[in-house]
Formats: sequence, structure tokens, C-alpha cells
Amino acid sequence: MGKISVEGKNSKERIYRDPVHNIIRIRTDEKIGELLVHLIDTAEFQRLRRIKQLGLAMFTYQGAEHSRFTHSLGVLHLINRVLEKLSSKYTIKGEDQSVIKCAALLHDIGHGAFSHVFEKILNFHHEDFTIETISSEETEIGRALKSFSSDFPERVASVIRGKFNSVALSQLVSSQLDVDRMDYLLRDSLMTGAKYGVYDLEWIIRTLEIDESRDRIYVATEGLHAVEGYLQARYYMFKQVYFHRNLRSAEVVLQSLLKRAIELIKNNGDVWFAKDTPFEKILKQQKLSLKEHLEMDDSDVIFHVKKWQSAEDKVLSDLSKRFINRRLFSALDLDMPEDEKKSFLEEARRVVEDGGFDPQYYFIEDKASDVPYYLYKADEKEPKSLILVQVGHSRPQIKEISEVSPAVESLKKAYELHRICFPSELKEKILRLYKKKT
Amino acid sequence: MGKISVEGKNSKERIYRDPVHNIIRIRTDEKIGELLVHLIDTAEFQRLRRIKQLGLAMFTYQGAEHSRFTHSLGVLHLINRVLEKLSSKYTIKGEDQSVIKCAALLHDIGHGAFSHVFEKILNFHHEDFTIETISSEETEIGRALKSFSSDFPERVASVIRGKFNSVALSQLVSSQLDVDRMDYLLRDSLMTGAKYGVYDLEWIIRTLEIDESRDRIYVATEGLHAVEGYLQARYYMFKQVYFHRNLRSAEVVLQSLLKRAIELIKNNGDVWFAKDTPFEKILKQQKLSLKEHLEMDDSDVIFHVKKWQSAEDKVLSDLSKRFINRRLFSALDLDMPEDEKKSFLEEARRVVEDGGFDPQYYFIEDKASDVPYYLYKADEKEPKSLILVQVGHSRPQIKEISEVSPAVESLKKAYELHRICFPSELKEKILRLYKKKT
Amino acid sequence: MGKISVEGKNSKERIYRDPVHNIIRIRTDEKIGELLVHLIDTAEFQRLRRIKQLGLAMFTYQGAEHSRFTHSLGVLHLINRVLEKLSSKYTIKGEDQSVIKCAALLHDIGHGAFSHVFEKILNFHHEDFTIETISSEETEIGRALKSFSSDFPERVASVIRGKFNSVALSQLVSSQLDVDRMDYLLRDSLMTGAKYGVYDLEWIIRTLEIDESRDRIYVATEGLHAVEGYLQARYYMFKQVYFHRNLRSAEVVLQSLLKRAIELIKNNGDVWFAKDTPFEKILKQQKLSLKEHLEMDDSDVIFHVKKWQSAEDKVLSDLSKRFINRRLFSALDLDMPEDEKKSFLEEARRVVEDGGFDPQYYFIEDKASDVPYYLYKADEKEPKSLILVQVGHSRPQIKEISEVSPAVESLKKAYELHRICFPSELKEKILRLYKKKT
Amino acid sequence: MGKISVEGKNSKERIYRDPVHNIIRIRTDEKIGELLVHLIDTAEFQRLRRIKQLGLAMFTYQGAEHSRFTHSLGVLHLINRVLEKLSSKYTIKGEDQSVIKCAALLHDIGHGAFSHVFEKILNFHHEDFTIETISSEETEIGRALKSFSSDFPERVASVIRGKFNSVALSQLVSSQLDVDRMDYLLRDSLMTGAKYGVYDLEWIIRTLEIDESRDRIYVATEGLHAVEGYLQARYYMFKQVYFHRNLRSAEVVLQSLLKRAIELIKNNGDVWFAKDTPFEKILKQQKLSLKEHLEMDDSDVIFHVKKWQSAEDKVLSDLSKRFINRRLFSALDLDMPEDEKKSFLEEARRVVEDGGFDPQYYFIEDKASDVPYYLYKADEKEPKSLILVQVGHSRPQIKEISEVSPAVESLKKAYELHRICFPSELKEKILRLYKKKT
Repeated sequence: MGKISVEGKNSKERIYRDPVHNIIRIRTDEKIGELLVHLIDTAEFQRLRRIKQLGLAMFTYQGAEHSRFTHSLGVLHLINRVLEKLSSKYTIKGEDQSVIKCAALLHDIGHGAFSHVFEKILNFHHEDFTIETISSEETEIGRALKSFSSDFPERVASVIRGKFNSVALSQLVSSQLDVDRMDYLLRDSLMTGAKYGVYDLEWIIRTLEIDESRDRIYVATEGLHAVEGYLQARYYMFKQVYFHRNLRSAEVVLQSLLKRAIELIKNNGDVWFAKDTPFEKILKQQKLSLKEHLEMDDSDVIFHVKKWQSAEDKVLSDLSKRFINRRLFSALDLDMPEDEKKSFLEEARRVVEDGGFDPQYYFIEDKASDVPYYLYKADEKEPKSLILVQVGHSRPQIKEISEVSPAVESLKKAYELHRICFPSELKEKILRLYKKKT
Repeated sequence: MGKISVEGKNSKERIYRDPVHNIIRIRTDEKIGELLVHLIDTAEFQRLRRIKQLGLAMFTYQGAEHSRFTHSLGVLHLINRVLEKLSSKYTIKGEDQSVIKCAALLHDIGHGAFSHVFEKILNFHHEDFTIETISSEETEIGRALKSFSSDFPERVASVIRGKFNSVALSQLVSSQLDVDRMDYLLRDSLMTGAKYGVYDLEWIIRTLEIDESRDRIYVATEGLHAVEGYLQARYYMFKQVYFHRNLRSAEVVLQSLLKRAIELIKNNGDVWFAKDTPFEKILKQQKLSLKEHLEMDDSDVIFHVKKWQSAEDKVLSDLSKRFINRRLFSALDLDMPEDEKKSFLEEARRVVEDGGFDPQYYFIEDKASDVPYYLYKADEKEPKSLILVQVGHSRPQIKEISEVSPAVESLKKAYELHRICFPSELKEKILRLYKKKT
Repeated sequence: MGKISVEGKNSKERIYRDPVHNIIRIRTDEKIGELLVHLIDTAEFQRLRRIKQLGLAMFTYQGAEHSRFTHSLGVLHLINRVLEKLSSKYTIKGEDQSVIKCAALLHDIGHGAFSHVFEKILNFHHEDFTIETISSEETEIGRALKSFSSDFPERVASVIRGKFNSVALSQLVSSQLDVDRMDYLLRDSLMTGAKYGVYDLEWIIRTLEIDESRDRIYVATEGLHAVEGYLQARYYMFKQVYFHRNLRSAEVVLQSLLKRAIELIKNNGDVWFAKDTPFEKILKQQKLSLKEHLEMDDSDVIFHVKKWQSAEDKVLSDLSKRFINRRLFSALDLDMPEDEKKSFLEEARRVVEDGGFDPQYYFIEDKASDVPYYLYKADEKEPKSLILVQVGHSRPQIKEISEVSPAVESLKKAYELHRICFPSELKEKILRLYKKKT
Repeated sequence: MGKISVEGKNSKERIYRDPVHNIIRIRTDEKIGELLVHLIDTAEFQRLRRIKQLGLAMFTYQGAEHSRFTHSLGVLHLINRVLEKLSSKYTIKGEDQSVIKCAALLHDIGHGAFSHVFEKILNFHHEDFTIETISSEETEIGRALKSFSSDFPERVASVIRGKFNSVALSQLVSSQLDVDRMDYLLRDSLMTGAKYGVYDLEWIIRTLEIDESRDRIYVATEGLHAVEGYLQARYYMFKQVYFHRNLRSAEVVLQSLLKRAIELIKNNGDVWFAKDTPFEKILKQQKLSLKEHLEMDDSDVIFHVKKWQSAEDKVLSDLSKRFINRRLFSALDLDMPEDEKKSFLEEARRVVEDGGFDPQYYFIEDKASDVPYYLYKADEKEPKSLILVQVGHSRPQIKEISEVSPAVESLKKAYELHRICFPSELKEKILRLYKKKT
């Protein structure tokens, strides 16, 4: 049940029940198990309960209300299973396994409010905070790792940095076929109700192998189709969930209102905020210390935006109401010739202005981080992240998966996103404009 | 996809995907469908996204992070299905159906933060706020209902009040076999990972019947076992989830710290709070207006308790840290003869005091609301809430279920809970005391 | 994939995919694994593919088409899991484990056509054939066991006989909480679509313990509810599936037609049968040798009954057509005072006769084997089969489950069945008679 | 429960419970419902219980023991659901719907033993027998259809023939996106345990549309990904199940032994068979009448092959034992340059001969019916079978799916299979030969 410590003759364990994996068990009769349990019980790890795994996705898929905490336990469970499988066949140092388990558990520890949303606004990478949380002696986590072994903070951080001594093991935590993705596809599928992320987890675990001569992970021949299924699951989840128009539009509204609040404060406008909180520093655009970053979670944002609904500033109060009451912007994909785009964007912006809205906050281009997203990237410059499979029965060889799978080959195309977001009130006008162009 | 409006030749609908029911579809080509969609889009209904269905259960079953919003959509879906089934066989007025659908959707609209937790502290019944939200012209919901039909607010409220003209229909929304329970058992089971709440929903829907002569719902003969399974599911969910020691202990810690904050403020102590918010009024023990009640949600609590971790008052800061970081109280069931209890309680309280803790906040008796909980209550004083089944093939009769089912008969015993909660640091000492008594 | 042998550096295994347990893996790098695989590949074990697990249940639940083979693999999987769990905590001799695994795999090896149906007709116990198959040197199984270790056939047989040296281990294979039941409840539930047999398998496995001082299995305190759920699952499966009127009525028709064929042959009537087959001996009421018994399966019955549809004898051809084309008898539960039964039975029999049917074949009383069926039997005379749980936190004790669980207490009542089966053509007449009596 | 007739005030229905679709309900208060129930109860339809859906796949995936009967009910359920959805939006004549429902239910009625296996051996198409069964007045089915409406047999047969007046409706029963495939992918996935066939059924049903102007089915824009998922599911099921080496090798063994039996009989050899049965005619290579064809099922084959295990002819008895006891041939994919194949085949054949086996029966080339299999075929010559989707929001157009989906484009490549099958005893020798060539 939930969390139970059972102590028997010679077995000690902590048990979590999980909607995806059913029973997650951490053996606490081993030193590493004790450490893992200790890490879970730290204030920093408990904070993950207050950060939604999918940020604002619950505005599109209302069931997507699960947290980074739940996901992180799932990732720990999977690394335990994968290592159990691999170590029944290959010799893997116990200490390396322990490092990898901690890295898997803690890989998301540095995340900010609403997962990725704040990174863009505040211009930070959660990985940096993850590394800092692990390395610092100011955190409960850092101290727990250190007391386990003096070089542990550094070694766990090295996995996140991509510098761990065993490449194969670090691939399990960070590559295009890692336990992080394995968990989130299944979990996000279940919670969104969007089914698309289901793949054959058991078969993938069964067919993972270590190429000891070249220190890398590969998938045995009979696992090819399971990995194809996994990559397609990821493709659908991106198309249907992670890049969903409403989700992105919710992020745009939140970004606009934060930008407005920051702007108002810079100009000494009248904006309520809780004094002496990290959120004050964010609004004043001051850099957060690690401690302050780790005090923040989704509730800070919700609490402030709720208050701002009654702000004097019309833009701030309007955007806050839209966000809180889910009256999001409309989003429109620019499926038109490149040379038409410029004039369309100008005309659409004018519609927004003419409607009485400041385009700075109410007319937003969304370009998927300005870099194309690779559903699967088969790029020799990042060999660590590639997925390799064994092919051929008589003379088996290890190859990059898209070389042997037309299904994966078809996923290599970059996925580009170009949208505009604007108040729904203007939808008809802008659609009329759009139809003229297409 | 989350929420999509599809408009075709003559079909209009809004679709939600759901982890429990898969596709939830609301037909918007009917007037009632338009109203339901309008109700969902109100600020008051959107607020339910920010209230966890199971309050603090996520401290025990980390996956229980779902909201009243998601549950309420599920309840709407079930009432739609049940009414579709019944109206294929019985004549049910369209307007009555519409009233019942609104009541099902809105049955939880008055809930406060963390579901039931605040009711005890602030001494209110969420049903009263539900009725007020529905009846008031100040709420978007009240206005939407009124504009549908002038007597609609009153009629929908009458269902919540238990005064609706059709008893049979109101039983579908509020009885011991209602769509509320049908949804939450399945949903809470899935999310907690505790599997116990699964029962044969499809078969129950199929076997629900209306006894038109006496205006009541019953279950056809072949549905008996499905209803037994449903009641047993409820039994296990109570035992394993709703009354779980950790969950109750989390509630106790939250209650203690709020009590302390209120006490401090009463005595002009130094307690931070956000000015001009409903939460301020709560702390000052002033009654909330409907509007203020509807501004509150889980985030107000989280935000304040996070701040209080650094309060000057040691008790407040200690309890706040315990709550935020999940260092809950231990809970111990008093499985001992009644006459032993008094002396044990006194001695245990002394251990708490001797440990340096103020028993007012650190030694709490938990008695399941002081009234025994009935897993199934077969009490003729509440005929509306009874579950009836048809028995006998040659001369069918309708009987109260526990008369014909030994399995249900065994659930009629009241479930009584008597526990003490105290800081875990004292666990060993108090256990030693306990063993002496038992 | 179905059955795959994977050979790697130091791992060898055979894999089966299973609708209930997903991946069933048998490690073949251990001597016992090699033996298990060898046993599965014998002719006798492959025969189980041709015997339906639920006999004629597919006439009621069309999906119940699975075989004893599939079930037996599931049982092996569960004993592997249970022993893995227990041996991480208790010291269990490797050889004893091997014996128990073989016994689990082979527990159904002696079953006749359509599982239990033929036992009644031919008056044999499948357990005797199971023991013989295991012990004989004429069978591939017997030889495989013997070549593993000379006393193995005897030791495996002793488990089936209930005489194995470790009572605790033998309870895992044969008691009221054994891996046989654990598998068939889940499997039959899935296949029938009747959901009722689902219970919390993972939690039961987790909470199984050995009481070493008294050599018996018990369930730890926190497993009580899971076991209650398991017993209730069994209760529903009996009520809804195993004792279903149609299933029993199909058996009655098959018994009647075999009885008729046997009768005709005895009187030198003209009945077709395949010469020199075990089925010939059955029809001539000669005892089958072990070898002959192991040649029989469902197809012998189907093939003959199909042929008999065109038999000259009217009774045989009529009953055969009913069986093949699923035009079964009606069944009626005798829910009436005992003293009414006699006269009702006489009158009903007369209706059958008057309808032109020979009551010997067309009017059958069905009494659930003439002994009441115990859904749960808490009888000290059979201590080996009892389910024990630990109760009490401060002074734990091991008790028989119905002492501590009202839910199980309510299942102790014997379940008695008294029905008559007759041609559906007479249903209305007999119902009219029945109504008069009740 | 299995099959239950419930009669209430104004509702009558027959219910089946199903492992895939849960409750399958046929309303019998409508004339068409009565007909469907009548068709299910015919001898010809009941025969489908005795024909395995996946032929010999249970030798690879032991759980694949389900029958054509179960599948056919699933197909009926899906056509009911699809027509319910479509007719809420489009005007579809009631009589056309009835025809389509009968065609869906009966689409497999002409199948022979072990599904497709016998078609090759006896050189018939099951579709011809399906049409004949439907059209003939000698069958219960033909008479039931005729008594419903005199042109019904002809109209139902026209759907199977691909000549039905409404192309759109007939596509629902027979195209690359039809209810037959929709059911079997889900069912075969569940039963094999091979998970690969799962796709988003609910979403596909929701997005199916009729292009009334051109009388064809298409999928609305938001259904594209669901259809991609469906086609990929099919791709994996072919690769992992339908073309699995062991399954094909089992078919090869069965074909060889039947060929041998036929050969022996032609030469007046001593082969046992049941006189005056359709199987005798098959062995004597005489054409079966419809009636005879409809008497055959899997049990005829099993029964004879079991007997042949003790045949005097060594080849027949050896092959029969291999089949019954699942000692199948090994299969080897010829992944080698075309010009190497000829010499390899010659040498491998010689190994077989040298091993004392007659290559006619023991060395079989398997070429996937000599025509490449199209996972998805986008061929304008067969417009009726194409899958069409709507694309574009501002100017929607209907396009063939592979034009707009790279994922489907990658499936258009024909799948070619070239294997040899031979006794496993020779595996090492032939593998050694094979390695030399590759």
C-alpha cells in the first residue's frame, strides 16, 4: 500500500503501488536501497509532488495531473529492472549500478514549476539545477549522497553531465532509448487517456544487451519490432500530446502574463506579489539561488495568477483570468508557402491590434523552440544517444536502427512547428485571412 | 483528444479522453449538451482542476493526484450512459433528465481545498456551497442554469437537497448505488494502483431498472453479483485507501498546523499570510462568502504552509515542515479493551509531553468523525439510499440487498476507527506502552 | 514470442508469451529448467493443448476456449514466482523446489476429455492418472523425471498424493490458496469476459510467508484483504461460470448421449465408432490403460458425436445434434420446499414422458455431485488446505482466515445445487407446473 | 453472462460477454436482431466454434486457441457500433444496414479446418463456400435469410462478392480498414499475448465518415494517427504472428502428411480413415459438396492424424507424430543473394536426402503464397480497398493515406518471404551450409 515498510526475518523493503508498474519495491536490506529511500524522503525530492509532469497538458487532457514525483519513482523502478536483467548476464560493478540508480531517481530533481514552461521564461536549464542539487552540500540530497561515499555526488552528477565512466550504463539513463522515456510514454499514455504511447516494455527489457567490447547498449535481433513500436509510440505522443495546440497555447498565455507582470514591476506598476519569496525575485528578474529554486513549485504560480485576476492592469488581469479559467488562445498552424507567411503574419497582427489587443502579449509566434524536433535522430555526432540493434542470424552485426528499419527511417524527418496564437475572439477573422492565403 | 469540438453535417460534440472511461462525449447538437459544455467552461467548474479528489491520499498512494474536475466529468459520463439505458425502456421526461445530468456534473462544485479536509476545520458542509453555487445569480453556473430555464437552478439544487420530484432519478445521483460512487471507485483504484475498487460497471448499468409503481431504482436479478462486487470494492477502498493511517495522519498534521496558525493570529502572533485573500479570513475565523469560498483551492494551502516553514513560531514551522516534506505523524489503532483505553491515552499523552511536544497539536485522537462508518447501511429510515434487487424467477420480488446476500449482510457492521496520532520520533516509546496494554 | 530459445553468453531461456502473465520465462541454464522444458515437450504434456480448460463452458461463455496446456504453463510461472519470493527470505532446499515445480507443471496431466466431464461418466479420478503418468516408466514424462533423479517420479507424485515431506511447499500446489487456483481464476475471468475472478495477485505473492516452526504457509497481516478478494473472486466464478445452468446442461446432454451410445452397443445396436481406439473401449465400458487414457482428448468426443448426428437410433441422433449445434436442455433450479419436490419431480417427469421423450435421457436431476460445494471450507480435519493469516501488530498470531474475516465467514456456507434438465421444447409446460409449487 | 435472453417491458436482447469487447448485445426487439440471433443459432454458424481462428498459431503462441465463432461475434459487434455511429449523421437505409450486418456476421462461414491451411491443400477459396452457404436453400442460414426477405440471400452474398449496391457500406466489411481486421487485430493480440496489435479502436470508430458524393468511406482529419497506429499494428502482427516461422513450419508439416496420406491412398496403401465422412473424400481427392464441407472442422484432422501416428507407413507415422507432439520442422529464411539461392537449395536438399528423408515431404520451400504480401497496398486498381483520409483544415480534401503519411508510405513495400523447412535434426548441418553462403 502506498508506502509501507515491511521488516521480516531477513527482508526489508519499501513498497509503492503504482498505476503503471503496479508494485514498486525498494529493498532496504541493501545499502543502496537504504540510500534510495533516504533520497526519496528528502525535502527536495518531495517537492516533485508539487510539479506536474506534463506542465499544462491537463488543459488539453484533463487526466494528465500526475507529478514528477510519481514519474521519478517509475524511472527508478525501470532502472532496477533493467539492471537486474543485464547483471544476470554481464558483470557490472555494484558501485556503478548504485550510481546509475541514484541518477535515474534524481534525473528530474532540478525541474522548475510546470516542468518545462519556466525554463523558457527564466532562461535556465533544469539539468544545471539537477547537477547542482546533487553536488551541493546544502541540500539533503547532496548530503545523503556524500555520506554514502565521498565521491558519490560527483559520480552521480557525472551521469547527468554525460561524462560517466561507463557509457553503456549512462545510456540507460540518458539516450533515445532510456528508462526516462520508457516510463513517461506509458505513464503519459495512461493518464491522458490517449493510448498512443503504449509499447511492449517487457520485450524491450528482455532484449537489451551490452556490447562490452565497445561499451554501449544494443537491442538483440528479436527486439527490433518492440523498439520500432516504442519509437512510434513516442511519435504519436509528440503529435497528439506534447505538441498539442491547446497545450502550447496555454504555455503562451502563461508566458505572456508573466512577461506583463515583469514589465509592470520594472516600471513600478502596481502588481501584487508575496514578499520575500523566490517568486518575487523571478518577477524582479533576479537570479535564484539553488535554495530558492528548490522552494518553487506549481503552487507559487497558481497562487499569484489567481490574485492577478483582480489586478488593476487590464492586460495582466485579462490574461490571468484566461489562464485560470482555461480560456486559452486559439492556435493556428501556418501550413502555407514560406513566401506567403510574412504578409499573413503582418495582416494577422493587424487584426489583433485592431481588436484592441497589444500584440506583444496577444499575438505570439510558436516555433517549437526554434529548432526542429527530431522524432528519431540518427546522427553520428551523438553516438551515445543512438539506438543500436543486432541484425543477421548467421553473422550478427550491430547497426543503427534506422539503417535496418524503414519504419524508423520514416521518423527521421525533423518535425517543425510554426504556429500563431491569439485570442479566440478573433478566430473567425483570422481564419478568413488564412483561407485567402492557402 | 482532450477537448475537441467537431462539427459535421448534423453532429456536434465535445470529446474528452479519460483514463477510466476512454472517450467521454457530450453531444452539443442538443440544448442540454450545450448547457453542459457551458457549465464545464465556467470559472467555478474549472476551479475543480485545482482540488485533489482524494485530498492528502497522494501522501500514501503517490499516484492519487487526480482532481475533482476529472472525477466530475466521469460522473457526467456515467449519468449519460445510465439515462440512455433506462430511457430505452422507460419513459423519462427530457427535462427531468436534463436536471439530473446537471446535478451529476455539479455535485462536487462546492468542495473546498483538499476535498474533505477543510470541512472539518472550518465547520462547513460542501453540499451547502454546492447548493448555493447552483442557486446564486452571482455565479457563472447559476446564470447559465437560469438562462436555460428559469426554474432550473432550483430544480438542480433540489436534487442535491434530496427533494427532487422523481425519487428514482435522484437515486442515480445520490444513494448507496449512485454514479458518483461508481466513478470514484474505478478512478481511485486506477490512480492509487490499489486495484481493489474494480467491479463490473458494465453489468451494473445493464441491470439497473426503474420500479415505476413505487418510483425507485432496483437491480434486476442477474445483477446481484455485480452489485455485491461493487459493495465489496467499496469496502476494500475504505479499508485500504480512504481510512489509511498515513492519509488520516496527514490530515491530522494539516489540521494541527492550521489550528496553530489561527491561534497565533488570534493572539496577534507573527504569522505571514497573503492580505485580502479568502485565506486571511479563514485564518481570522471569519465566514467566507460564496465568492470567496469559490476562490479557494489547494494552492492557497500549499503556498501558505510552504511559507510557514520559516515561521518564527516553532510549533507552526515544525508542523509546516512535516506537512510539506511528508514527515507525518505515526498513527496507532487502539485495539484494546475499552476500559484500558483511558489509562493508555493518559500515559501516551504524557510521553508526548515529556518529549517536549504540546499535546494540543501533537497528540490527536482520530475517531472517524465520531460516528461509525457504514460500509453498507440497510436502514429503513433512509429508504432512498438503499440498494434494492429483484429476486425469484417465477414470482419476482424487490428486496433490500442485504436480505438476500450474505456477502452484503457481512458488510452491514459499522466500521469504527479509534486511533492516536503523534510524532514518529516517539513511536518506539508509545509502542512499548501499547504492548503492555494488549 | 510463443516459444523461443535464446542463447547468450551465460543466459539460456525459453520464453512463452501469455495473455494473463505476459512473459513466462524458463531459465534453461539451470538443470531444473532443462527438465521443465523437456517435460513441456513430451507427448503427454502436448496433449493438454487438446483438452479445454473449462470443458463445455464455451457454450455459455464463448471465449472460454483455452486449454489445460495454457493453464499449466501459467501455474508453472506462478510457482516460479512464489518460490523466488519465499526463497529470498527462507531457506528452502533446491531439490524440494524442483520437485514442487514439476508437480505444479504436471498437476493436470491426467485430465480426460473436456476436463471434468468424463470423470463422472467413466468413474475415474484424473488425479490417479496424473500420479500414474508421473510414476510410470512408459511415459516420456516418467522417464524424463527418472533420468533427472531416480527418486524424482516418486517425490513429484507424493505432492499430488498430499504426502510430500514439506507440507508448506505442497500447500503452494494444493490447498485453498494454491497456484492452480491463482492461475485459473485470472485466466478464466479473462477468457470468459466475466471479470469476476480478478483479484490482487501481486499483493498475495508479496504477503505469502512460511511458518517454519509448524511447516505451513500463511499470509502476512497486510495481505488479508487481498486474500478476501481472492476468495470472493472464486465465489463469483463459481456462481457465474462453473455452476452456470447452460454449462451444466451441456454436460447433461453429453452424458445422456454417451449413456445412450453405451447402452446401444451393449445391446448390439448399430452405433458407429472408430475401431481400435480408446474410445471404442470407453463405449464398451472397458477400463483404459494409462497409454490409452493418454491418447484421448476432446477431438475423439467431437468426432464421434458429429458422426452420431446421422445415427439410426433416434435418441442418439437427436441428442448428438443438440450437443453439436448447441441446442441444450433447459435447466431449472428447484427453489421450493423440500416436501414439494418429490411430487413436482414426478409431475415434471410425466410431462417429459408425455412429450415423447425417454426420461432416462431427457429428464436429468443435477445435484452438484451430490455433495455440497464449499466456497471456503474452514474445517480442522483438513488443516493442509486451510488459509491462515497473521493478525495483530503488537502480538501477532496466525489464525484461520474465517475467524478474523466476516467476509470469508459469509462464504463458509455450503453451496447446494438442485436442478432438473429437460428439452427446451417443454420449458413452458414445466414452468407452469413450477409456478404452482412456489 | 455468456448468452442470456432478457425480456423486459419493451426491451429484448441477447447478451454475450467477450474478452475483447466486454458486452456484446444484440437487440431482439428489432426484426434484424431476431434474424441475427437466428443465424448465430444455426448449425453452420455453431460449426465455427470448432475452427481455430489462427489455425496452427497456437503452436507458437499457445494462447491463440480462440475460434472463428468468437471472432465472428466480435465482427458483428463492431459493425453494429460503426453503423450506429454513421447513421447518427448520415441517412442509411435500414435494409442496407441489415444486409451489411448479416454479411459481417457471416463473412467467415465458409472457412475450412484450421482456417487457411486447408485452402492450399484442397485448392478452394473459403469465400466461395461462404457465398454458397449464404445463397443455398439447403443450409439453415440460407433459409433464415430467405424467410427474412426473398432477395436477402442474394444481397448478403453480393457484399461478399464485392458487388453490393452501396460501395461505402461494403467497405466497412471488406477493405483495408474493415471491421474484420479491426476485430482480429485486437483479439489475436490479446490471445497471443503479443500486444502488437493494439490500436485506438474507439478513435477510429469516432472518425469514420461517409463521402456521400462519391459513395465511399473516409477517415476525418483527426483520425489519421489512429489509422497509422492500426496499420502498424497490422504490420507487427504479420511479422510476429501470422508469418512466424513456427506457425508456417507447422502448416508445412500438416501439408506434407496430408499429401503423403493422399498419395498412399491413391496407391492403395494401408491408411486408416473414417468411412463415409467428408474426410474420406478429401483423402480420395474428391470434391466436397457444400453439405460435406460444412461437416468438416479441426477435429476431423486432429482425430485422423492422431490415428496415423501408428500408421504402417513410416513417413506418415513420423510426420503425424511430429505434428501431434509439436516436433515441427526448422525454418530458415533465405537472406542471401538471389544467385546463391539455387546452389544452396540444391545442397540443402541433398543434406535432407542424405539424412534419410524424402525431400518431397521433408524439404519444403515456403514462399508466402508465391505472391508478395502487401502490408498496405495503395493501388488505384483496387479503389474499394484503399484507406482515405481527409486533410487540410481550411480546404479539406480526401486523399489516399500513404500520400499524406510517411509512416504508411514505409509500409507499402511488399513483404516477401522465402524460407526452407526441414527436420530439426538437420538444423546444424544446414546452418553450416547457410553460413558459407552468407
